[in-house]
Amino acid sequence: MGMYIGIGRKARKCFGFDDVALVPGSLTINPDEVDISWEMAGRRFEVPIIASAMDGVVDVRFAVELGKLGGFAVLNLEGVQTRFEDPGEVLDRIAAANPEQSTHLLQQIYSEPIKKKLIGRRIEEIIAGGAPAVVSAIPQRAAEFGSLAAEAGCDIFVVQSTVISVEHESSAYESLDFSKFNADMHGCGIPVMVGNTTTYEVTYALMEAGADGIFCGVGPGAACTTRGVLGIGVPQITTTVDCAFARDRFYKMTGRYVPIVTDGGMRVGGDICKAFAAGADAVMIGSPFAKAHEAPGRGYHWGMATPHANLPRGTRVHVGQNASLEQILFGPAELDDGSQNLIGALRTSMGNVGAHNILEMQNTEIIIAPAIQTEGKLLQKAQRIGMAK
Amino acid sequence: MGMYIGIGRKARKCFGFDDVALVPGSLTINPDEVDISWEMAGRRFEVPIIASAMDGVVDVRFAVELGKLGGFAVLNLEGVQTRFEDPGEVLDRIAAANPEQSTHLLQQIYSEPIKKKLIGRRIEEIIAGGAPAVVSAIPQRAAEFGSLAAEAGCDIFVVQSTVISVEHESSAYESLDFSKFNADMHGCGIPVMVGNTTTYEVTYALMEAGADGIFCGVGPGAACTTRGVLGIGVPQITTTVDCAFARDRFYKMTGRYVPIVTDGGMRVGGDICKAFAAGADAVMIGSPFAKAHEAPGRGYHWGMATPHANLPRGTRVHVGQNASLEQILFGPAELDDGSQNLIGALRTSMGNVGAHNILEMQNTEIIIAPAIQTEGKLLQKAQRIGMAK
Amino acid sequence: MGMYIGIGRKARKCFGFDDVALVPGSLTINPDEVDISWEMAGRRFEVPIIASAMDGVVDVRFAVELGKLGGFAVLNLEGVQTRFEDPGEVLDRIAAANPEQSTHLLQQIYSEPIKKKLIGRRIEEIIAGGAPAVVSAIPQRAAEFGSLAAEAGCDIFVVQSTVISVEHESSAYESLDFSKFNADMHGCGIPVMVGNTTTYEVTYALMEAGADGIFCGVGPGAACTTRGVLGIGVPQITTTVDCAFARDRFYKMTGRYVPIVTDGGMRVGGDICKAFAAGADAVMIGSPFAKAHEAPGRGYHWGMATPHANLPRGTRVHVGQNASLEQILFGPAELDDGSQNLIGALRTSMGNVGAHNILEMQNTEIIIAPAIQTEGKLLQKAQRIGMAK
Amino acid sequence: MGMYIGIGRKARKCFGFDDVALVPGSLTINPDEVDISWEMAGRRFEVPIIASAMDGVVDVRFAVELGKLGGFAVLNLEGVQTRFEDPGEVLDRIAAANPEQSTHLLQQIYSEPIKKKLIGRRIEEIIAGGAPAVVSAIPQRAAEFGSLAAEAGCDIFVVQSTVISVEHESSAYESLDFSKFNADMHGCGIPVMVGNTTTYEVTYALMEAGADGIFCGVGPGAACTTRGVLGIGVPQITTTVDCAFARDRFYKMTGRYVPIVTDGGMRVGGDICKAFAAGADAVMIGSPFAKAHEAPGRGYHWGMATPHANLPRGTRVHVGQNASLEQILFGPAELDDGSQNLIGALRTSMGNVGAHNILEMQNTEIIIAPAIQTEGKLLQKAQRIGMAK
Repeated sequence: MGMYIGIGRKARKCFGFDDVALVPGSLTINPDEVDISWEMAGRRFEVPIIASAMDGVVDVRFAVELGKLGGFAVLNLEGVQTRFEDPGEVLDRIAAANPEQSTHLLQQIYSEPIKKKLIGRRIEEIIAGGAPAVVSAIPQRAAEFGSLAAEAGCDIFVVQSTVISVEHESSAYESLDFSKFNADMHGCGIPVMVGNTTTYEVTYALMEAGADGIFCGVGPGAACTTRGVLGIGVPQITTTVDCAFARDRFYKMTGRYVPIVTDGGMRVGGDICKAFAAGADAVMIGSPFAKAHEAPGRGYHWGMATPHANLPRGTRVHVGQNASLEQILFGPAELDDGSQNLIGALRTSMGNVGAHNILEMQNTEIIIAPAIQTEGKLLQKAQRIGMAK
Repeated sequence: MGMYIGIGRKARKCFGFDDVALVPGSLTINPDEVDISWEMAGRRFEVPIIASAMDGVVDVRFAVELGKLGGFAVLNLEGVQTRFEDPGEVLDRIAAANPEQSTHLLQQIYSEPIKKKLIGRRIEEIIAGGAPAVVSAIPQRAAEFGSLAAEAGCDIFVVQSTVISVEHESSAYESLDFSKFNADMHGCGIPVMVGNTTTYEVTYALMEAGADGIFCGVGPGAACTTRGVLGIGVPQITTTVDCAFARDRFYKMTGRYVPIVTDGGMRVGGDICKAFAAGADAVMIGSPFAKAHEAPGRGYHWGMATPHANLPRGTRVHVGQNASLEQILFGPAELDDGSQNLIGALRTSMGNVGAHNILEMQNTEIIIAPAIQTEGKLLQKAQRIGMAK
Repeated sequence: MGMYIGIGRKARKCFGFDDVALVPGSLTINPDEVDISWEMAGRRFEVPIIASAMDGVVDVRFAVELGKLGGFAVLNLEGVQTRFEDPGEVLDRIAAANPEQSTHLLQQIYSEPIKKKLIGRRIEEIIAGGAPAVVSAIPQRAAEFGSLAAEAGCDIFVVQSTVISVEHESSAYESLDFSKFNADMHGCGIPVMVGNTTTYEVTYALMEAGADGIFCGVGPGAACTTRGVLGIGVPQITTTVDCAFARDRFYKMTGRYVPIVTDGGMRVGGDICKAFAAGADAVMIGSPFAKAHEAPGRGYHWGMATPHANLPRGTRVHVGQNASLEQILFGPAELDDGSQNLIGALRTSMGNVGAHNILEMQNTEIIIAPAIQTEGKLLQKAQRIGMAK
Repeated sequence: MGMYIGIGRKARKCFGFDDVALVPGSLTINPDEVDISWEMAGRRFEVPIIASAMDGVVDVRFAVELGKLGGFAVLNLEGVQTRFEDPGEVLDRIAAANPEQSTHLLQQIYSEPIKKKLIGRRIEEIIAGGAPAVVSAIPQRAAEFGSLAAEAGCDIFVVQSTVISVEHESSAYESLDFSKFNADMHGCGIPVMVGNTTTYEVTYALMEAGADGIFCGVGPGAACTTRGVLGIGVPQITTTVDCAFARDRFYKMTGRYVPIVTDGGMRVGGDICKAFAAGADAVMIGSPFAKAHEAPGRGYHWGMATPHANLPRGTRVHVGQNASLEQILFGPAELDDGSQNLIGALRTSMGNVGAHNILEMQNTEIIIAPAIQTEGKLLQKAQRIGMAK
């Protein structure tokens, strides 16, 4: 496993969404009759799609709407929703900024201090709307914010940073003790999801530390430039296969099944189908949801690393708003590009490959079939995106 | 066979038209003297090219013209030809629509009910024109429409959907029993062609169920976005090799030779030549025929999944009309891009590789020689398509 | 050697110029002191670059100029030079045609009959200019034109078609007997070069039939669309390696060294250097010479398959004229893109890899280092060719 | 190690920055606490980034500023700084030239003779500014200029040409004896860095000849067209791995640790991180520094092979000036594209992969994950660079 990249040094080849495809099955199934539900920590969700903790995607209203439709959204406790009483005005300014100003403006806006009272208020608003209240913080703030969130009655707590590890060295601050944190939250009846990682080792270790769900994926998102800035990034198919292998092994050793969530880089229904085929139990998406009328970003989205004061990674991306959240999830699709009716696409794909449920979808055949720009396709694509006549 | 895409999981690499090329032979043959005919169910056709069951490509007139030239066209029994007394007016509206409106308009037009009396009428019109009457329906309607078509005297019946399987699970409707259906049609003296599949298993099973010809290919067509929407799609060279392997094995076991037809993704003569080299007995094309003056699409074409009410896959594609059908098949070519004189190209290619007939062409050497965009080629291509000076 | 492209079928991977690169040596040499001469049939040439038998590249004047500089040009006996008393007027019309008209105009111009008296006259004109008179014809006309050319005193005769083979089947016309033809020409003291082929087998067989030089390469030229139209084409590095292997084996078995000439697809000095590294004794180029002020094409060139009446392959390509032939060969280069000072580039490359002569250059290390469009390079290239700011 | 590129001939596959990526570690570290310093010949530098000996990047002022910040710059003794008393006027003219004129103008400017008195003066100016005085010359002039530089008190001497070798054959001039030269400079207490090479063999031999540092990389720079012109070029990851292997082996055999410096082709922080992961002790960059307000190129840069009188390789590249040198090295970054806060990026990357220092970074895992243009990414990139809306 691996090929030489120079004398005495091997590297293994990794694969992303555009490198692979799925294969029709010998059995096919009526799409309406496949089961796409998933479970985490004993809770069952009808829609295996989670909205990313991005300020252009999730606010209270969006979380309520997605919850009603059977999924859930993660509200970022370190974003504009907890820094500003009235985030709407701030989001207006972000949407109105020139491309040149946007990174600088974001850096400025995110320097506003977090108002702790807003943490509880947002959670209560989501609960009042009848949806699961799921909120996130980085490891450094997880202990403090987790406790506040628990008091406010949150349903699931997410600890998320660009790259997570079980062991973090620092003499300047104290690192989060995941085992203790998870135990504390479990004591309040709150499951904990942790991410992001790309490796078997960290996935397994986080499960051992008590995590109830793992986010997989570093660097592939549309708003993310981690690979360009840091050189770090593992293609999502390989990441998902590796983390799923850890999940299956952990289950075999302990009997506890901890779902993994592929996070980042999925733009269309086909990408989502491939993520499940690679082993995901659920997926987290940002960019496709940012196009919903219900999304707070006014047609824009950006990652949480974008406003980093010293080393911004990512950019404000314009996607426009062209459909309701319900249409994006369940159709009818008005576009044929795979960006709408994501659940319909997943059901149809599962029916075509002959998977009765997510577990069977995780074991469907994958082929290597790169979608690279070939002579034949260049003209076609160029025409679609308006580069040629 | 296969390489690791992650821990514990292998995938095999698949190949498409742009990934491969053919090699000149040690023997060459005068192109006028190679034999390109093929047979199905005891019938012989001089031209091994079939027109796709697309409404922008095939109507009665087109079927008649292609039949006279030695090939045949498949008329879709679920398209505008059986939904409208006067399809011309509808095709005018499709051609006149804005790109933004086109998917929506198609969804609307295809919600018009099928008029069963038109099934017989269209078949009779083709027969009156002196050409083979070949018509198609999806599996759910095959039993009913097959019986109507048989009454009207059709020559060949095609059962075709995006992805076909021998076994289909549904509690909401009854699945087609292929063995029974094929036996019924054979009782009327009508051969049955079935598709589309990409796999050895389904090809073999369909042959066992009595199919007389198999269409191979899911997802590669110009008007098709199955791969983007569903993640499903197998590159055509590998598909053809796999299905041809099933055909040869079935022939060895049973003595019955069931031709396979590569369907989708061929834009130019070179692609068609490669399909035969990979093992095809015939090819089915849509986009190249849509450019014929005789094509009903007024310079446009679209797939049958395009107007899907809930999950449209594919798009209306503009190709213009620039030659007669005869010129597209037999030349003289006025363009040098491989889109005209397809039969001349096939003959010349067979002469150059030294293949006396399709059987020998199926065994010519294939090399892996990707036509990807390299530094050297980018400028060249960019110039051709008008992206650079 | 080969990988699976489907069940039961293998193909080998082939390589072109953009797929490989050369490696600096442990020894380096002063470029002025490397020996770039080559020999064929006992004749020695100082410049290992031959001009293609293309009407946009070679006329009498160009052949004379290149001969004086140490190389030689091939005049096509079936082009405008032998169809028209005054080819200049015809070349003016070709240069003045619209892109849409050009293929049709070429088809029309090349339907003018060949005037046999012009064959002798052009040869005499080249000889009068003091350069080697090298002329070409396709196999069907080789016997007749070869005899006329011999009478006129030509120095080398070239038999060249898109794809050559030793055995050609036709009941409509008689195929050329290469052994007899070569013997006849040798009887007149005239060496015969033959092409084009891409394979070990044909190269070896042509050498056995007495050929004095072999042209290698089918399909890669800038003006060539053989791959798109016929599906045929072997990348030039693999072609050259294979044919060079035949040459070396033939030499080992017979003691006769028959040089091979890589023909097609070389645009810049780097491509030429790689051709020698892959095993070429000389190279044949068209497009880079078409840019010379001395080239007859007025800044355009086209292949001999372009004006095919029924199945044109190739296109008229505009390159402009920006330097003298001497500057293109020996510099000084005014451009930094590798299109000028080709001999200087070859010498510098040989010096850097440590090759004293062409034989050593044929054995220098080659690495696989694709020049495909990566994220990093796209912007760079796009900027150069004016696609982005 | 190697695959067949034709009959009887193998080549090994090499890798560049865009072909690979890094993987998050099981341990992570606070970025502020990783150690990025490096040592050469007993001297320690806090910043492992060296500025290229390019006239658009380095003059006295720039060398002083970079030295103050903990790195060092190489001043080219054969550039405008030693050919002109007042290089500013010359640099103004270069910046003002049209793209068409620029290569010719550079050829003319660099034909001005070098004024030897300026060698000492520039070195003294740098020393007066309080920074390390590091200067370079090609091998042919190293003996003479090295002696002048030593007299002026330079800190490090660099012998650099496009391709370096230990053995150079020429009857026209005497080749540099590296062992003697290194010994002479060491006698003056001046370390010698030599380059550029791409191979294990040359790296090892140069270390045996006494070199104190080796520059690795031929052909990959943004301003470099060596690959196109000469066919020569080894992708930087493989080059770095190979040269690092020579360094480690030389250290094992001799106990002397000679750092290697990856030079060329790094545009963003991610590239630099990958160079260290491949084995570099330090990196040399030009293009990213040319964007500094302190760079003398007025927003342009060009390589030393660009003005070659007879065979120019490379081009004047426009990058603009958009940040201070301090901002480029240490941030805060105003752009999110990886071009600013290079040291912050290196620290963050090392923290994420869990490398305490450069030595550990040299052994972090590398994966093969090509950043080629896939369907999904083309639109995204096209939008960023303004090719599509």
